[in-house]
Amino acid sequence: MSNIKLIVEYDGTHYHGWQYQLNAKTVQGEMLKAIKKITGEDVNLIGAGRTDAGVHAIGQVANFKSNSSVPISRLPYALNSVLPDDIVVKAAEKVDDSFHARKSAIGKEYRYYILNSELPSALLKNRVYHYKYRLDLDAMKRGAELFIGTHDFSAFKAAGSNVESSVRTIKRLDLNRIDELIELVIQADGFLYNMVRIITGTLIWVGNGKLMWSDVRDVINSRDRSKAGPTVPPYGLYLYKVFY
Amino acid sequence: MSNIKLIVEYDGTHYHGWQYQLNAKTVQGEMLKAIKKITGEDVNLIGAGRTDAGVHAIGQVANFKSNSSVPISRLPYALNSVLPDDIVVKAAEKVDDSFHARKSAIGKEYRYYILNSELPSALLKNRVYHYKYRLDLDAMKRGAELFIGTHDFSAFKAAGSNVESSVRTIKRLDLNRIDELIELVIQADGFLYNMVRIITGTLIWVGNGKLMWSDVRDVINSRDRSKAGPTVPPYGLYLYKVFY
Repeated sequence: MSNIKLIVEYDGTHYHGWQYQLNAKTVQGEMLKAIKKITGEDVNLIGAGRTDAGVHAIGQVANFKSNSSVPISRLPYALNSVLPDDIVVKAAEKVDDSFHARKSAIGKEYRYYILNSELPSALLKNRVYHYKYRLDLDAMKRGAELFIGTHDFSAFKAAGSNVESSVRTIKRLDLNRIDELIELVIQADGFLYNMVRIITGTLIWVGNGKLMWSDVRDVINSRDRSKAGPTVPPYGLYLYKVFY
Repeated sequence: MSNIKLIVEYDGTHYHGWQYQLNAKTVQGEMLKAIKKITGEDVNLIGAGRTDAGVHAIGQVANFKSNSSVPISRLPYALNSVLPDDIVVKAAEKVDDSFHARKSAIGKEYRYYILNSELPSALLKNRVYHYKYRLDLDAMKRGAELFIGTHDFSAFKAAGSNVESSVRTIKRLDLNRIDELIELVIQADGFLYNMVRIITGTLIWVGNGKLMWSDVRDVINSRDRSKAGPTVPPYGLYLYKVFY
């Protein structure tokens, strides 16, 4: 029995997120079908991050245990030959039995793309969030710095989400301008539900002047979801990398 | 009566090309419907380039004559509000009565993107041509230089296409590697039908060793379509800019 680790890229546009659902098309559901076709096995496929509907992945990680005789080096090609072409297995390797895509992760990197231009883009539809009003990137960068470190991020989790602790450590939060795109790069040891999208929405409030950059500290300290900015749309979000 | 010039971006994936067809969804057809909705007029919409099904545009140019009272500065917003979101009017301006999007053009720039990687990309599906075998970019660059200048490009036009002269002048043909992408930038005074896609296919033959870079001169001189490389798929091609 081998424990197999996969790296998966997908366009989340046409999926109801990662997580298997009986009556909806999901990335995990498509992966399970593909694994069944190639190996004949019904496996337990563990994903590192449960991305929402519309969210994309460059480097989702998943693992499953298998007795398949398909050589590991051929597995990406075999799986891609039966997967829909908006899901691509980029790599496969055998890992230690104890490896668990979610529990073994020590951190993740997400990226969020804002197209900050007067007019939208036809070619970047479903790939970026179009925000047409002026954003003060310098203020946003100052606000972003205040997120770095270990905090209770209760103000930045979706209402109703239920986890034991809301304390997380953000190791990196960069904002880069690439022509009319603003790229947000965020690394943390873990993320609460909708945390990246609410942090991004809060930084948009800093950029458009609804909040001062220095207000970010008060919003964090409030632990109150209603003090933070909106949850920005899923289609600008990418699960970029999982760290082990 | 104003003559109005538009710059249009579109994702060609879901269209049967630019050119109006009675029973198929086309970019020109969608534009005509949008103009009718906004101005109430049935106009003659002239496009600079008749892009094929699946081909994209960053800077398609079109013009039409109109008596509409919609202020020109509002026209992009008005049209975008009724266009499907994979077609975006990026700019509108009033131009001289004599301006004709196709006949007034003195040149065009197309770009073609090859994803040269072992595995395909889920997120670049319908945006780039995935070519998995090794390509020698230096050889391709040498071959590309031989296309520059004024030649009879009969070997690089689709069989059956019928134009008076096959002589064109290529002003620029650059190849750039951006990570695993190869970007081809080509500028000419005009292009024969499928010319960019056949030139790209021929340069792929140079890159994979099927042709020597120096063979490109013989292929051009042959004026024989059967000597040139394949017509690469439409979805890697972008009409980037039209020059006036």
